[in-house]
Amino acid sequence: MNYKMMGRFLAMITLLDAIFMVPSLVIAVVEEDARAMFGFGWTILLTSVASGVVLLLCRKARVRFYAREGMISVGLGWIIMSLIGALPFWISREIPHYLDAFFETVSGFTTTGASILTNVEGLGDSMLYWRSFTHWIGGMGVLVFLLAVVPASGKGSGFTMHLLRAESPGPNVGKLVPRMRQTAMILYILYIILTVLDVIFLLFGGMSALEAVCTAFGTAGTGGFGVKNDSIAGYSPYIQNVCTVFMLLFGVNFSCYYMLILGRFREVFRDEELRFYLGMIVGSIALIALNVRGMFSSWGETLRHVAFQVATIITTTGFATTNFDLWPTFSKTILIILMFCGACAGSTGGGFKCGRVLLLFKSLNRNVQKTLNPQKIKVVRNNGHMISEKVLDNLHIYLIAYVFLLLVSIFIVSLDGQSLTTTTTSVIACFNNIGPGFDAVGPVENYHMFSPLAKLVLIFDMLAGRLEIFPILLLCARSTWKKLI
Amino acid sequence: MNYKMMGRFLAMITLLDAIFMVPSLVIAVVEEDARAMFGFGWTILLTSVASGVVLLLCRKARVRFYAREGMISVGLGWIIMSLIGALPFWISREIPHYLDAFFETVSGFTTTGASILTNVEGLGDSMLYWRSFTHWIGGMGVLVFLLAVVPASGKGSGFTMHLLRAESPGPNVGKLVPRMRQTAMILYILYIILTVLDVIFLLFGGMSALEAVCTAFGTAGTGGFGVKNDSIAGYSPYIQNVCTVFMLLFGVNFSCYYMLILGRFREVFRDEELRFYLGMIVGSIALIALNVRGMFSSWGETLRHVAFQVATIITTTGFATTNFDLWPTFSKTILIILMFCGACAGSTGGGFKCGRVLLLFKSLNRNVQKTLNPQKIKVVRNNGHMISEKVLDNLHIYLIAYVFLLLVSIFIVSLDGQSLTTTTTSVIACFNNIGPGFDAVGPVENYHMFSPLAKLVLIFDMLAGRLEIFPILLLCARSTWKKLI
Repeated sequence: MNYKMMGRFLAMITLLDAIFMVPSLVIAVVEEDARAMFGFGWTILLTSVASGVVLLLCRKARVRFYAREGMISVGLGWIIMSLIGALPFWISREIPHYLDAFFETVSGFTTTGASILTNVEGLGDSMLYWRSFTHWIGGMGVLVFLLAVVPASGKGSGFTMHLLRAESPGPNVGKLVPRMRQTAMILYILYIILTVLDVIFLLFGGMSALEAVCTAFGTAGTGGFGVKNDSIAGYSPYIQNVCTVFMLLFGVNFSCYYMLILGRFREVFRDEELRFYLGMIVGSIALIALNVRGMFSSWGETLRHVAFQVATIITTTGFATTNFDLWPTFSKTILIILMFCGACAGSTGGGFKCGRVLLLFKSLNRNVQKTLNPQKIKVVRNNGHMISEKVLDNLHIYLIAYVFLLLVSIFIVSLDGQSLTTTTTSVIACFNNIGPGFDAVGPVENYHMFSPLAKLVLIFDMLAGRLEIFPILLLCARSTWKKLI
Repeated sequence: MNYKMMGRFLAMITLLDAIFMVPSLVIAVVEEDARAMFGFGWTILLTSVASGVVLLLCRKARVRFYAREGMISVGLGWIIMSLIGALPFWISREIPHYLDAFFETVSGFTTTGASILTNVEGLGDSMLYWRSFTHWIGGMGVLVFLLAVVPASGKGSGFTMHLLRAESPGPNVGKLVPRMRQTAMILYILYIILTVLDVIFLLFGGMSALEAVCTAFGTAGTGGFGVKNDSIAGYSPYIQNVCTVFMLLFGVNFSCYYMLILGRFREVFRDEELRFYLGMIVGSIALIALNVRGMFSSWGETLRHVAFQVATIITTTGFATTNFDLWPTFSKTILIILMFCGACAGSTGGGFKCGRVLLLFKSLNRNVQKTLNPQKIKVVRNNGHMISEKVLDNLHIYLIAYVFLLLVSIFIVSLDGQSLTTTTTSVIACFNNIGPGFDAVGPVENYHMFSPLAKLVLIFDMLAGRLEIFPILLLCARSTWKKLI
């Protein structure tokens, strides 16, 4: 194992974590919030010093870096980043228990949006800002950011490639341009442009600056932390519609936007994953709208709420404008299927990803055709490109790991004695980085009542979901620790 | 397509169906049950004539037979067999709607045990016998029976092998002895011996002959139809324990019994699937017993009920002695996990099968190890034998098909507007051939309230579950019908 490189890398992440906290500290200072100043100040100080020491110690690192080291580093990096990110909440006593603060921060970075807070509006502005900012940076990825801004990290393409692979969502991670660093920069530039647009639209709707920025962060990262206890329900229909549109936009593969800029419209409109994603959205809105029409006073209101809820679930954001836990079973079932499906690969959304679902379906269909015509050789294609057997094999293994983790998590969380629906949907909602589930974790409820064990399992699920299982699963393998120690 | 061979084969199945009804007709005659005589008499007559005509028409068939033809024949065969098996219920007006009678018969042949009858005790003896007999013949398989008794079907080993493959459960169908026909005979002899033993033990407990035979049929096929409205709850603890033991015995791979007879004890005790199966049973009983101890008056009573419920679920039988829908979530979750897991491959039980779960786990572990040590080549082994990549690939595809069908079925059944728990567990219980689920399909409830559409979907699921998906999935592929027509 290349310990020094891993140490350098982890120290850079924690340093970045400290730097990200500076705006929150500034807000705390401006608002003369002593507890928050205390929380952010100490965290920034301690983290910077510790990171600096580790960076000094690991000055000279070998360049060689393997895929497994990349995965383990990313897994550890996200855990440490969350451990540090939780400190301000805890030191300031805004969240009295450290495990709760950790849960909230993991939920932030992984863009889940599951909260243990019963009164969000009681938090100070600096805390609200930090809480929502974790969504924004977690959505596109800390390592992608690191890659885009820190030239020193570019030593050896193996390093950067393996890290990006481990952090980026989707079955088949591609580069937009030949150089990784430029890819990362393009992604973040697109991300910033879209976020700024969102803020502007929200400001037009009469939101305060802080509300607009926090809501945009939650939307951009497809996270779901709001600044109000009733999430987005209290805002005007205009703001709700803006959120719907931007949630859906952030659920699209960012390479589509890059291609749009390059003028490759045809490729975008023919993209199979995008078509599948849009098809799922339109189909779900139509079916649910017909199903719940009686619960609202007009078609306009029905469509607004249904479109919002479909957008919030398929992009795994988790905002809410209405209590969909009261909807009929058919609508709830569609939402649960959307929870599993998730957004596009290469977006900030979570879940299984439309691209994966599509490939699984093609893989299954290939097998049926093979049984019918054993002599014909059939390859699986995506947008006309052949998908290698290795990618398909990894996809199958991903499904196995997904199902196993889901069942094991539900098994442990069920010890809490919540209802079957609460138990299963809390795991589904955390594992797919959504936030709200049904019953006791429904859109108007939260996660404060779970036991510490259940919270730990849900934290594990959120991390496994965001990092697409393997970086976190590797940390659980005995052989990894034999190698590490 | 080899139509004549398929026609011959389907006609043989329907003829067998008619022959199987003769004992029920005899019971009806002895008991002077005019409606039942009418029902069985007409069905036997019509079916025999129709089968005879088809057999004459398809006299000269080519011997060549492909895997796809085997699968399609088995899928069609099971559907036609159930369509005919439902006639006596319907003609006799014991079940007034044909769809309900079809549901009940499919549930019988597939050894699911999900019933639409609210008053089982109202059925005549001949009907009860026929209902339970469908479990017995469906458990080990109609084609296996055909193979064992009809020498004419042995034309060309491709024919028999493909049929057996399509009907037998498990990821890796093996022969006990080189000749298929002898394998089938050995399986049925073992099956009959165990069933007779069960009947004897039940008779000792004071059951009437009909009750004992019907209960033994339900146990042997791991079906779950009882002859009492309260299933097994009203019987003595002795009878409940006999059922527990025999359910577990019928959930074991029958090749283990064959090896025991041959004196290969070591192989049996080292069989990984058997160990996994026993481990799951012991572990589940221990955990659930600790969880529900407070609901019963003594440890003895707790263990009796818990062992019965674990046995009935893991073997996918579906008898009941207590309403486990009232148990705490932790116990229910364990039962749901057992529902998915199922019994051993090569047994009469349903579900995903222990052997498959074990292989999936090994496949996942192999992939984790590959990431950690990319240079090492690792093969997946079962009982020391290497598992080919093709078998693993088929296993992965099986999981994909399983998950897809599960979600699609839940989606359609949710249109009925039952609770989320009812909707999901009814599909899980039918797809895994168990019978009872939770909530409105719990152990003291039944399936009569579903809409015709939901019943059709559940019928599809029961057949797909029993035939391990592909024979039924092929019937849904457009290309199959292009070939057929």
